[in-house]
Amino acid sequence: MSIREIKIEDLNPQVFIEEQCRLISEQVGPSKAVNALSGGVDSSVTTMLAHRALGPRLLTYFIDNGLMREGEPESVVSAMKNLGVAVILLDARNEFFAALQGKTDPEVKRQAITDTFYKTVFGRLVKESGAPYLLQGTIYTDVEETVAGIKRQHNILAQLGIDTEKAFGYKVIEPLIELRKPGVRAIGEALGMPEKMYNRPPFPGPALAARVIGEVTPERIDLVRKATLVVEEELSGVQAFQYMAVLHEDRVTGTRSGKREYGFQIEVRCWDSKDAVTASPTRLSFDLLRKLADRITSEVPGVVSVTYNVTTKPPSTIEAV
Amino acid sequence: MSIREIKIEDLNPQVFIEEQCRLISEQVGPSKAVNALSGGVDSSVTTMLAHRALGPRLLTYFIDNGLMREGEPESVVSAMKNLGVAVILLDARNEFFAALQGKTDPEVKRQAITDTFYKTVFGRLVKESGAPYLLQGTIYTDVEETVAGIKRQHNILAQLGIDTEKAFGYKVIEPLIELRKPGVRAIGEALGMPEKMYNRPPFPGPALAARVIGEVTPERIDLVRKATLVVEEELSGVQAFQYMAVLHEDRVTGTRSGKREYGFQIEVRCWDSKDAVTASPTRLSFDLLRKLADRITSEVPGVVSVTYNVTTKPPSTIEAV
Repeated sequence: MSIREIKIEDLNPQVFIEEQCRLISEQVGPSKAVNALSGGVDSSVTTMLAHRALGPRLLTYFIDNGLMREGEPESVVSAMKNLGVAVILLDARNEFFAALQGKTDPEVKRQAITDTFYKTVFGRLVKESGAPYLLQGTIYTDVEETVAGIKRQHNILAQLGIDTEKAFGYKVIEPLIELRKPGVRAIGEALGMPEKMYNRPPFPGPALAARVIGEVTPERIDLVRKATLVVEEELSGVQAFQYMAVLHEDRVTGTRSGKREYGFQIEVRCWDSKDAVTASPTRLSFDLLRKLADRITSEVPGVVSVTYNVTTKPPSTIEAV
Repeated sequence: MSIREIKIEDLNPQVFIEEQCRLISEQVGPSKAVNALSGGVDSSVTTMLAHRALGPRLLTYFIDNGLMREGEPESVVSAMKNLGVAVILLDARNEFFAALQGKTDPEVKRQAITDTFYKTVFGRLVKESGAPYLLQGTIYTDVEETVAGIKRQHNILAQLGIDTEKAFGYKVIEPLIELRKPGVRAIGEALGMPEKMYNRPPFPGPALAARVIGEVTPERIDLVRKATLVVEEELSGVQAFQYMAVLHEDRVTGTRSGKREYGFQIEVRCWDSKDAVTASPTRLSFDLLRKLADRITSEVPGVVSVTYNVTTKPPSTIEAV
């Protein structure tokens, strides 16, 4: 691929920030840019960079696709407000769930989310706003994995030969595309963002849809959302790269109040990794694993079984879906 | 239920053996009995008891249902031969796989195995041999779980109101029905069986079919058989009640040689338990868990992910299916 990587040891954050602000400002010129904020590290840093470059010429949207974690839309909007960035919260839940209905293949699900995001929702937003640019937080690892064919990242377009201007009516600007995650965090720090924001554990573009094996429905998202809340509460104190709850489609036999219950299974994954290219399962204590299982089977309706993933990447990947 | 439990503290093995031999001998009288040996503790102890009671009037069969572990049919037959018991090995693999085809619900799968075993295979054997009795190793816990509706054990018939004489043409004799697992092991020891035989970890009646979520096919049994071999090799040195590999129907994203591989997941379960009524996951070392994952993903074709179950029973059950 033609994009060069800036290695963390070669990165001068202040120089990078000045350079990218200049490039964004030059490209957008006197017009406007629309910005998709997901609340993750990459999109938050992109937002701060673009806000610095464009000021009020930047229109930042947070799309509630119905696939977010508990309380996430509100907390992301409020955290950005504290940094002086106004964010427009847009409810697109029905559009996403309609697009996901009946789909079970991971790639087909990702494609449905990508299409709804870029074509349906942002196509409309860009048209309505008259802004010919979309800012997004694509990073080097996303490009690499998509090009290698490991996993289709939702935000990869140009690198797959998609002409966004033709397809969706806008150009995409990706100021972080030469960086890996540690580089992005360094930029966030240099931009004066709170540590909690630039060190936030990664969360996938398709959000909780990436945590549901099989069909994504509002009910199944609600189950995995509850399990995610438990996992994030219990593992936030652990030094790990990323942690997650995955709802399986398989059902397993359980027993409750002495009766058979054919119930759900939640898989917990917690990864040690530098850059998501390789990863290994975090050596969580058995007490913590037991506590996770106890809480998830008590707090998430219908869950009778909890597992912990013990595979490395490769041959696993960080996300199951 | 009308069956009384003999608690381990009230059990006098020698008295129990004499009493059961007398009862078996009286019931069978001058005719013959057919005996279904699975190789598990319960059926092996039943075989030894009945062999002592009936001698050559006992016809012991080992049914190869295609769902056994690697090398199991041969090793069970040979171990019994060493104890002076002749076992007839019967190949019924096609009959079982035909009965399981297209079935995914655990109860429906169990029912298909039960029907094939009792009606098709043993109905024919009993008819051909002219023996009006079938010996089997049902224990108290099987009855309890079936009656409570937790899990339909394959060997529970009379307790569910099934008249085996009417339905299949033979009467069932269950000499161990008042015992739980520790009692059965004590009887095995008192009968002079090798420790390896009476302390063998439990293995379910439906064999590897109970380790496959979703449809049971020869190919899927072959995958879980390979995973079982690894799990049993690695965990045989661990002090645990039971351990197993479960093949999921769900597939997950993996990566091999830099390419995406949508592969299989194996779940490992290893239980601490006294009597299978309650159980908790064995605190295996992380190194051992990692070794299991490494070996299973290398040695079982198509497996990209391995998990370890961390739930207690209840709300889980020992077997997933």
